[in-house]
Amino acid sequence: MASLTRRTSNPELHNHLYPVIMAGGSGTRFWPLSRQLFPKQLLRIMGDETLIQQSMRRVVCASAPNRVMISTNPAQAESIRVQLSEWKDALSDNFVLEPEGRNTAPAIALVALELVRRDPNAIMLVVPADHIVKGQRDFDAAVSLASNLAAQGLLVTFGIKPIRPETGYGYIKPNRKTVLAKQGKLKGHPVARFIEKPNATKAAQYLKAGDYYWNSGMFVWRAATILEEICRHQSPLYRGIEKIGQLMQQNASRSVIDEAYRTLPSVSIDTGVMEKSTKAAVVPVTFRWSDVGSWGSLDEVATKDKAGNVVVGRVVDIDSQRSIIYGDQRVVATIGLTDMVVVDTPDATLVCPKSRAQDVKKMVELLKQQGAPEHLEHVTVHRPWGSYTVLEEGPGYKVKRVTVNPGGRLSLQMHHKRSEHWVVITGTARVTRGDEVFDLQVGHSTGIPVETRHRLENPGHETLHIIEVQNGPYLGEDDIVRFQDDYGRGAEAPRSFKV
Amino acid sequence: MASLTRRTSNPELHNHLYPVIMAGGSGTRFWPLSRQLFPKQLLRIMGDETLIQQSMRRVVCASAPNRVMISTNPAQAESIRVQLSEWKDALSDNFVLEPEGRNTAPAIALVALELVRRDPNAIMLVVPADHIVKGQRDFDAAVSLASNLAAQGLLVTFGIKPIRPETGYGYIKPNRKTVLAKQGKLKGHPVARFIEKPNATKAAQYLKAGDYYWNSGMFVWRAATILEEICRHQSPLYRGIEKIGQLMQQNASRSVIDEAYRTLPSVSIDTGVMEKSTKAAVVPVTFRWSDVGSWGSLDEVATKDKAGNVVVGRVVDIDSQRSIIYGDQRVVATIGLTDMVVVDTPDATLVCPKSRAQDVKKMVELLKQQGAPEHLEHVTVHRPWGSYTVLEEGPGYKVKRVTVNPGGRLSLQMHHKRSEHWVVITGTARVTRGDEVFDLQVGHSTGIPVETRHRLENPGHETLHIIEVQNGPYLGEDDIVRFQDDYGRGAEAPRSFKV
Repeated sequence: MASLTRRTSNPELHNHLYPVIMAGGSGTRFWPLSRQLFPKQLLRIMGDETLIQQSMRRVVCASAPNRVMISTNPAQAESIRVQLSEWKDALSDNFVLEPEGRNTAPAIALVALELVRRDPNAIMLVVPADHIVKGQRDFDAAVSLASNLAAQGLLVTFGIKPIRPETGYGYIKPNRKTVLAKQGKLKGHPVARFIEKPNATKAAQYLKAGDYYWNSGMFVWRAATILEEICRHQSPLYRGIEKIGQLMQQNASRSVIDEAYRTLPSVSIDTGVMEKSTKAAVVPVTFRWSDVGSWGSLDEVATKDKAGNVVVGRVVDIDSQRSIIYGDQRVVATIGLTDMVVVDTPDATLVCPKSRAQDVKKMVELLKQQGAPEHLEHVTVHRPWGSYTVLEEGPGYKVKRVTVNPGGRLSLQMHHKRSEHWVVITGTARVTRGDEVFDLQVGHSTGIPVETRHRLENPGHETLHIIEVQNGPYLGEDDIVRFQDDYGRGAEAPRSFKV
Repeated sequence: MASLTRRTSNPELHNHLYPVIMAGGSGTRFWPLSRQLFPKQLLRIMGDETLIQQSMRRVVCASAPNRVMISTNPAQAESIRVQLSEWKDALSDNFVLEPEGRNTAPAIALVALELVRRDPNAIMLVVPADHIVKGQRDFDAAVSLASNLAAQGLLVTFGIKPIRPETGYGYIKPNRKTVLAKQGKLKGHPVARFIEKPNATKAAQYLKAGDYYWNSGMFVWRAATILEEICRHQSPLYRGIEKIGQLMQQNASRSVIDEAYRTLPSVSIDTGVMEKSTKAAVVPVTFRWSDVGSWGSLDEVATKDKAGNVVVGRVVDIDSQRSIIYGDQRVVATIGLTDMVVVDTPDATLVCPKSRAQDVKKMVELLKQQGAPEHLEHVTVHRPWGSYTVLEEGPGYKVKRVTVNPGGRLSLQMHHKRSEHWVVITGTARVTRGDEVFDLQVGHSTGIPVETRHRLENPGHETLHIIEVQNGPYLGEDDIVRFQDDYGRGAEAPRSFKV
């Protein structure tokens, strides 16, 4: 991993560089693989690591793990912590949680406020958690040049050379006459203008002109500069953030801070600040980039078979071409498909032509309207101690497979409305039931009556799997009273926005 | 149900009419809804009843339930008995089981042999279990006319008026000059010639000519006549069947009879007998018919929405047209499909254009070659006492939901290799475990150790559902020792071909 510890040119600047991973995205466009509570950043879309793991590995090259800030929300924080557990200690104090999504400007302002407190000279490298970048060396070079510009008080964005007349992105035109900085082949320029998502004709013109760049949503700036610019162009937001800073210094209660956050205006950093600022600069970059914005966009980055198909999972195909076929454990049998998307998950299947992949968002909206739980989360839910998978749910019962990592243990808990039965299928379970503590081996079982304090623990070196059968009139995950928890989880409420 | 007890014109003939439902088909072309062990005839493809239930109801109009013979194989007999339980007593002695599929001629010969023994003047009405017929009155009229012809020693087939240039069926040209019998608008003619499945050009010519009919695979003849014609044109088969008749009269053992059956030549009644016989007659019929031979053929018979889609199950669609979308419990989300087939089942999903629906057969072959269990049976398996559904299977364990009908009970049994845990989720379970017998209510559980005699029973009026967790090194359904069974099932071997 020698290459991963490479440092770019200006050590002084890098001592002040803080990567900020924006990880609050919802999971609509990669449904059904992504869910509202399991968005794209948590998916292993390409390669052995999930997108957020790849993003983390990318930014620690230019910084140190304990400088990386994670901006997310309470619902996703746990899954992200699990996925970034390799950097667990370094990140322990670096999660900034928004009580609710208010678009990018408030989220960035909140992190900037915290970073200014930690280091008045902090330079932020803001990257979305769920994009794909290919070319670490080129990325590092771009970060290095952009940091120099940021240190001069500029708001720097990375411009991506367009490869198709995309109508889904904003475009940036640099002012080529002025070179703000240069490093090898890379140059920084002032932004001549920002262009909102164009129509198809305009997009084709920009592609042909060759002097327009896609706005990648990655930024480098001093934390103090962005706060100043927010103050200048979004003063109500600035005042709100300032107030939240004061409340935090006064150790105000979580609910007061959450309430203050909820009143912030919902505004994006692009339209709300960048496009209004005179300090905007752009570095046209050389690395390959994709925002993998829909199933169709996998074409740009994924490995294909001879017929141009992207195939994952237990797929049996006859004669398909240029299709994207994602299976899981069940058999997906496809015959003669052309330019189609098929995604099969344990509780939902999607079938559409690639050309309609953008409408997956509509589908998720429709499911949400219908109250279908499949838009929200997967049947497998990750927890700090392992995971559980709902095998079946019916009136008055639920069947789960529960996986507990070696050394992991669930909270000491109790349910008011349900009894549980546990049968061990692999490993050893240490069970606390009322005042008893005992071990169960494979093929053995126990029952936990309603309102009995209990705990499940894996004391061994092997992963523990149990089948849990729940019975009761109400089986919601929120029927839980936690008495003690190794992972600092309280009884019910989500954790505060600031960890 | 008055219309269902209608009788056609000649009571004397009908006293000798024996409907024979050919129910030995394999389940390849409607995969994944059909399986080798759960073929198309058992599916509720259209209407509230399965195809075999509809077939039964159709033929009892022209006969009595206790005259209906069911020709099938041991693997499917149990499911068929469950589906035809409305006629349980009438059919109790009327299942003719082939030890293995040897095409239609041996199966028909075997039934003919049995019928001649029961009634020397028996007339057989042979119908496939898995076709759709619309127009009971027209069907009855055709049976009536055909029976008259059969009584005269003819081999009568029903000719269907072609509605498209189908290349998948055989065609029949009647000799219009000769009218063998007439009844209302219906006429019977000698067959001028049988034509094997034609190519597309020929099929178009036949459709245009208007004097060619599809061979429907339905026949009416005297049992004695078909045996004579088999003797004449397929003498090795006849000798084999004769020998089996003798063995049966001598009460030979099942294995000896099975062995004799296996040596019979595999030959179809169409090419082996009908096409060679001088006694072939055809009645061009007026009822609507479909062999629902593939997913694409559902177009002919199923109800469609405004956009021409056939939609079943939990499907959420945006903008699809003329597609066939079959879901089950999971969400199937489709966007912008045109002329596609999507079939989603608990363990397998199929996606193909309608134009490739015939290739589903190839897919099943491919799965079989790969040893994929999904070609063979469903995750839900029906039993005389209820059913079970495999929720999950992994190394060393299996989780099932077991459903026991009121009053139903599983055999008194034992397993050598697995222990079982039962948790009641609905109803009351009466459990026999070793020497104990006790009742379990909802939310209660018990464990059955390896090699312990046990039984599960539903003593109540409500359906019993339990979750069963199996543990052990081998979890095959054949690890079962049966001590007593209410449904006459032995320890392991399938039942004989003759019930």
